[in-house]
Amino acid sequence: MKHTPFQAGFTLGFIGGGQLARMSALQAFRFGMKVAVYATSKATEPVENMTPLVFRGSLNDERALADFALACDVITLENEFVDSAVLQRVIEKTGTPIYPTPASFAKIEDKLTEKDTFAAAGIPVAPHRSITSPSDIDTFGEEFGWPFLLKSAKGGYDGYGNATVRSGEDAVGAWSKLGGSDGRVVMAEAFVPFTTELAVMVARNQTGMVVYPCVESIQQDHICKEIIAPARVPQAIQVQAQELAKIAVEAIDGIGLFGFEFFLTHDNQLILNESAPRPHNSGHYTIEACHTCQFENHVRAVCGLPLGDPSMKVSSAAMINLLGLRNGKAEAVGTQDVLQQPGAHLHIYGKAETRTGRKMAHLTVTGDDVDATLTKARELAENIQI
Amino acid sequence: MKHTPFQAGFTLGFIGGGQLARMSALQAFRFGMKVAVYATSKATEPVENMTPLVFRGSLNDERALADFALACDVITLENEFVDSAVLQRVIEKTGTPIYPTPASFAKIEDKLTEKDTFAAAGIPVAPHRSITSPSDIDTFGEEFGWPFLLKSAKGGYDGYGNATVRSGEDAVGAWSKLGGSDGRVVMAEAFVPFTTELAVMVARNQTGMVVYPCVESIQQDHICKEIIAPARVPQAIQVQAQELAKIAVEAIDGIGLFGFEFFLTHDNQLILNESAPRPHNSGHYTIEACHTCQFENHVRAVCGLPLGDPSMKVSSAAMINLLGLRNGKAEAVGTQDVLQQPGAHLHIYGKAETRTGRKMAHLTVTGDDVDATLTKARELAENIQI
Repeated sequence: MKHTPFQAGFTLGFIGGGQLARMSALQAFRFGMKVAVYATSKATEPVENMTPLVFRGSLNDERALADFALACDVITLENEFVDSAVLQRVIEKTGTPIYPTPASFAKIEDKLTEKDTFAAAGIPVAPHRSITSPSDIDTFGEEFGWPFLLKSAKGGYDGYGNATVRSGEDAVGAWSKLGGSDGRVVMAEAFVPFTTELAVMVARNQTGMVVYPCVESIQQDHICKEIIAPARVPQAIQVQAQELAKIAVEAIDGIGLFGFEFFLTHDNQLILNESAPRPHNSGHYTIEACHTCQFENHVRAVCGLPLGDPSMKVSSAAMINLLGLRNGKAEAVGTQDVLQQPGAHLHIYGKAETRTGRKMAHLTVTGDDVDATLTKARELAENIQI
Repeated sequence: MKHTPFQAGFTLGFIGGGQLARMSALQAFRFGMKVAVYATSKATEPVENMTPLVFRGSLNDERALADFALACDVITLENEFVDSAVLQRVIEKTGTPIYPTPASFAKIEDKLTEKDTFAAAGIPVAPHRSITSPSDIDTFGEEFGWPFLLKSAKGGYDGYGNATVRSGEDAVGAWSKLGGSDGRVVMAEAFVPFTTELAVMVARNQTGMVVYPCVESIQQDHICKEIIAPARVPQAIQVQAQELAKIAVEAIDGIGLFGFEFFLTHDNQLILNESAPRPHNSGHYTIEACHTCQFENHVRAVCGLPLGDPSMKVSSAAMINLLGLRNGKAEAVGTQDVLQQPGAHLHIYGKAETRTGRKMAHLTVTGDDVDATLTKARELAENIQI
């Protein structure tokens, strides 16, 4: 490193400039750091409005990534769709560290590898298998029952790249659509009936590991819609989810901030569903609800700083995602109530364009009673359109 | 305005890019806004590292200010040493509003005018008088007693431009040094013996006015060293200070965020000492201690948004300024403890160079008991050197 984290000029680089990088950058600024962004999309990414240090290129452009790395003291990513070999070469070429490390990314770089990594660490995951031909589909269905999920092993998020299949005929079409017939890796995953979805964030580096509370995640169309903190499940289950999350981070030797989503089954078993090697939507509530928010601990973790207290400083919190309701120039309207309500906090991501279903903003409400807090958050969110 | 505040592209401009603009910018970003800065110093100002929209010029360069104004939807200032006539012409030329308004600035544009404005509104201020010749000095000393203060009416802050004079001889030298003999306006102000210094922040715009708690300010060498919230004075005095602050904001028809410092005398009288038409050092504690911090309400106020709840969400808070201890490249060391202490929050301003006595960072600690919180904050601050 050319600078230590609290030395003037220290620059934290983000590969990807969306809302996760944006909220992390706010914490880096609080520590007096500079921020650089490597934008990968043609459109202006939110962090580009927050720094003069803007780079642009594809995730495979080693030369552009190396130029970016030379301008940074440490780099982190808000996007897990990277090639760990490319990142490793950028580190070797420039000497700039990247956290999480390419070695950690390699252990979760596609959904199949990810599930195998966590299963090998003793963490319960859903039955799954690689599907390389239509005949594999029937075999999987017969063994684990219908319906089940087909997922492209690489590149899917928020339900993109997922399909629920109900029959062999269904499945062959979905498999082709996901690229299976073109040789892309497609995975079958047994459907896990669950009562609740839970999530836990963990920050870890050489100085230690801190675990956030277990929260409840309410999804709609495969997108996180609401987070309720703490989760309305028995304490023993919350602790078990936290313990599994710690084991999972250790299994990939993770340095940075990591999110883990679990299914809680009808017989109170926890199944690890997905992991994210970055700040996660299910941790946005921590900005107002915890002593040290996920974004601050993300910055601390990748910069090698001691980690902060992750515990809640309020009794309860509810976070609601505000998704785009139309296509066009972004504008948040109906915000009068939320601005005037004590304990309500509006975060707008600075995206130029709204699209139906796009994550544009979120709202967090803190309060004493968890159900009342959720009700209040829902009422306030109702009025806001973006 | 070209954009409404929550519309993509809305740009908030700051004249001056120091720590007050920096912390305000963080709140603007939280609302998805863009930030532009008009830097007035040759050295890089902290906000220049937070935006690609950087302009540079003097405070009197109407043309450069107009170029800046055309890139902004609304402008605010972190520096009150402005010429209200210049600002008024920039508004007329560009149509971009500036808050606080030039009319408000005109009412406080030098210390003499400021005191007269507030005195006219019925707010107690210290006896004061313009000193235009050495003979005025003796007259003032005979009337109000020695020692007293000589202040340059314009441009002083944090004790710069102030002198305590103990005798006529003393005073003539100080008066010359402050520019009195060159025709600069110098003011004499009677020394007010006080037990405690108090401060109150107020946010106000067309949608309403909100008043922050009354806090206690501990100064050293005329610089704010510590803030204790709430102030350890009877409730009746806190409320009176809040009421006087509201009257003061109304007296200047203030739109934006304003800070007021009071002396509490031995006989429990409040005397308004200084005002600041901007976020203020005595309001930094609000970031962690209040439902809506001073910087967020500053952004809301100048953007015409409804104001947020200013009340405290913790029992007590202590803020300690971390001043430079040497001259050279800035680096904060000894931060391990503060990073690991629950309820302690470190803010570093991103200044490239440290200087002895320069405001480089601050630390806020929240807690239950006000004295214990202050003790903890002092212990943590002891370890940090910048």
